[in-house]
Amino acid sequence: MRKVVVQGVGMTRFGKHLNRSLKDLTNEALQGAMLDAGVNLSGIEAAYIGNAMAGIISGQECIRGQVMLSGSGLEGIPMFNVENACASGSSAFHMAWMAVASGMYDMVLAIGAEKMNHPDRSRAFRALQGAVDVEDMERNSEKSENRDNQSLFMDYYAAEAREHMSRFGTSIETIAKIVVKNSRNGSLNSRAQYQIPQTLDAVLNSRTISDPLRLLMCSPVSDGAAAAIICSEKAAKKLTNQPIFVAGSVVLSGNASDYKGASSTERAAAKAYEIAGVQPSDIQIAEVHDAAAPGEIWAYEHLGICSPGEGGRLLESGATEIGGRIPVNPSGGLISKGHPVGATGLAQIAEVVWQLRGQAESRQIPTRPRLGITQNAGGLLHGGNAAVAINILSS
Amino acid sequence: MRKVVVQGVGMTRFGKHLNRSLKDLTNEALQGAMLDAGVNLSGIEAAYIGNAMAGIISGQECIRGQVMLSGSGLEGIPMFNVENACASGSSAFHMAWMAVASGMYDMVLAIGAEKMNHPDRSRAFRALQGAVDVEDMERNSEKSENRDNQSLFMDYYAAEAREHMSRFGTSIETIAKIVVKNSRNGSLNSRAQYQIPQTLDAVLNSRTISDPLRLLMCSPVSDGAAAAIICSEKAAKKLTNQPIFVAGSVVLSGNASDYKGASSTERAAAKAYEIAGVQPSDIQIAEVHDAAAPGEIWAYEHLGICSPGEGGRLLESGATEIGGRIPVNPSGGLISKGHPVGATGLAQIAEVVWQLRGQAESRQIPTRPRLGITQNAGGLLHGGNAAVAINILSS
Repeated sequence: MRKVVVQGVGMTRFGKHLNRSLKDLTNEALQGAMLDAGVNLSGIEAAYIGNAMAGIISGQECIRGQVMLSGSGLEGIPMFNVENACASGSSAFHMAWMAVASGMYDMVLAIGAEKMNHPDRSRAFRALQGAVDVEDMERNSEKSENRDNQSLFMDYYAAEAREHMSRFGTSIETIAKIVVKNSRNGSLNSRAQYQIPQTLDAVLNSRTISDPLRLLMCSPVSDGAAAAIICSEKAAKKLTNQPIFVAGSVVLSGNASDYKGASSTERAAAKAYEIAGVQPSDIQIAEVHDAAAPGEIWAYEHLGICSPGEGGRLLESGATEIGGRIPVNPSGGLISKGHPVGATGLAQIAEVVWQLRGQAESRQIPTRPRLGITQNAGGLLHGGNAAVAINILSS
Repeated sequence: MRKVVVQGVGMTRFGKHLNRSLKDLTNEALQGAMLDAGVNLSGIEAAYIGNAMAGIISGQECIRGQVMLSGSGLEGIPMFNVENACASGSSAFHMAWMAVASGMYDMVLAIGAEKMNHPDRSRAFRALQGAVDVEDMERNSEKSENRDNQSLFMDYYAAEAREHMSRFGTSIETIAKIVVKNSRNGSLNSRAQYQIPQTLDAVLNSRTISDPLRLLMCSPVSDGAAAAIICSEKAAKKLTNQPIFVAGSVVLSGNASDYKGASSTERAAAKAYEIAGVQPSDIQIAEVHDAAAPGEIWAYEHLGICSPGEGGRLLESGATEIGGRIPVNPSGGLISKGHPVGATGLAQIAEVVWQLRGQAESRQIPTRPRLGITQNAGGLLHGGNAAVAINILSS
């Protein structure tokens, strides 16, 4: 298989965009990626489109990508709608990568977009509740419980957090410090939904969502789009002398023997490291799936950035801050940057590309990194993530 | 890219399966495909899953494939949910083909499943209405019109039929004879939803759905699943001495310059013929997208089986019957076999594989064909199909 380059990335600001359509958000991300790549529409041979919620949010059950890209000038090319819940964007990226690596296409588009905000706020929560085994859930759940305004994902993160606290002595303050770090990073990111640094007290004093999770520890309801233009090494040579390569790209589903879903990330990361021929200690920047703050602590451990149980101490050491040994979520992460689920994986790719190029504005990692990783997870099944995607990028 | 073999296929009977879950249907198709391929679960390295409607039918918005395959023993491998409306199954097949052709995997699964029947019959029609540009439709439609029990796709087919009748002199009787042929074929197919040969009078006298379409000219609301196990030529050599190759696989989206959506099929077929290095006149069996009977007539023309406008005359000549020069829809087509949308493309593949192997029971084409084509289309956009998939298989 051929070497593949991420030639250009683009994204909208994430946030509440009630008056903008998915088509409009998609087009902004596409235009940004094309400008960044230095290419025009005519070079793009196929599109892989990630979205998870348009069915329930707007009634667009089918052909979401074709509708999003309608009017863009890309109509007519192969288009594939790819869904893997909150890992839809990175799954679309993986498929786009394969399409170029295979030799079938020289240049393709991966794009992810999501509108979660709707005048009826319960729709976003209902969509997220469709990311578990629905029939199984209906059989087992207390029907009387009204879950229309809460994500069951936060209950999952809360239970995992309690276990981590009990097994490894992780404190609620340490979890809150993830938010302090990521909100500070987000304040430096002009595309982040929230650009306000939060204090430890503010995080701890925000209302409890599902004990021990506080509101500010949870990623928000977001709208937005992100895109990447991916091409062969040969095609990239005509466009840049600073290519960013895809060193490894892995998507896996969860299985029942995964330790509470954790090890789907461990399995995927191990495979990606092997493909890329690198060690966890070689990684110089990570964008990870902090849909709730404790998720970042598990990510440290499951990506091998630290040993099992040491995630809290790694955070406390300052190693994962922008100036630290291994900066994690310099973009602000899902918590501050926002989490429009179908776009998130591609926004992670965009951040790593910008950091590897030295183009990350005032949040640029001081010693420019040469190797970065993204971790994106989606859905709940078998007690863990239904899908996990790992991508390793290198300059 | 490597040569790819369809090593095994399986499908459920299509029909009304109110008491069977998607998981149950999927498992039957998977077991059938594994038995047919002579492989077990351990050989399958990734899965590409087509489904279009589970969000609206059962609330399974996300991770549909992971849920369908939960308990199958395949958990843990890469899984991708692929959606392209009624072309979802063949889009999943195309991605599975690429995954093997690229050299990334030696053996993968493509599976499509759909439950359309629901105690609330309006759900299937609502799902189909999500296969157009929903926001555009809402802006333009008469809000007062109650469309909950009718497919707007049938209005589309009806308009196209009227135009074909007016331009080329195609008669309503000729269109009805598509149903006579396909229902006779379906009566020979133990997996078809309808196994009753229809008379010309019965077709013409069934109630009008959208003039000139009669009820029996329209594919039914169906449940079912179909699967294919796809592998490298090298892997196939250990399993069979009668391999069926994927000679060409193309998926395209529609664009505004397509002649009423027709030429997305023409464009895709031309590309597939070029890749396969064959001419339309080389094709010896075709399974085409007769979601309504006139669709088969256009397919004759757009696949180059006959000249533009000659589709009606080709049918009348008997050439497309099982004993004719170029049998079309020997399975019974969507009209008789049924059309569980996410499964349809893979059921077409299964039929061509069986025919190429000489295993098509009493509907076997007498002179065993060596080259077959499938045409699967989905969604409506820009006045035509949003997605079209063409696959050419050869023995």
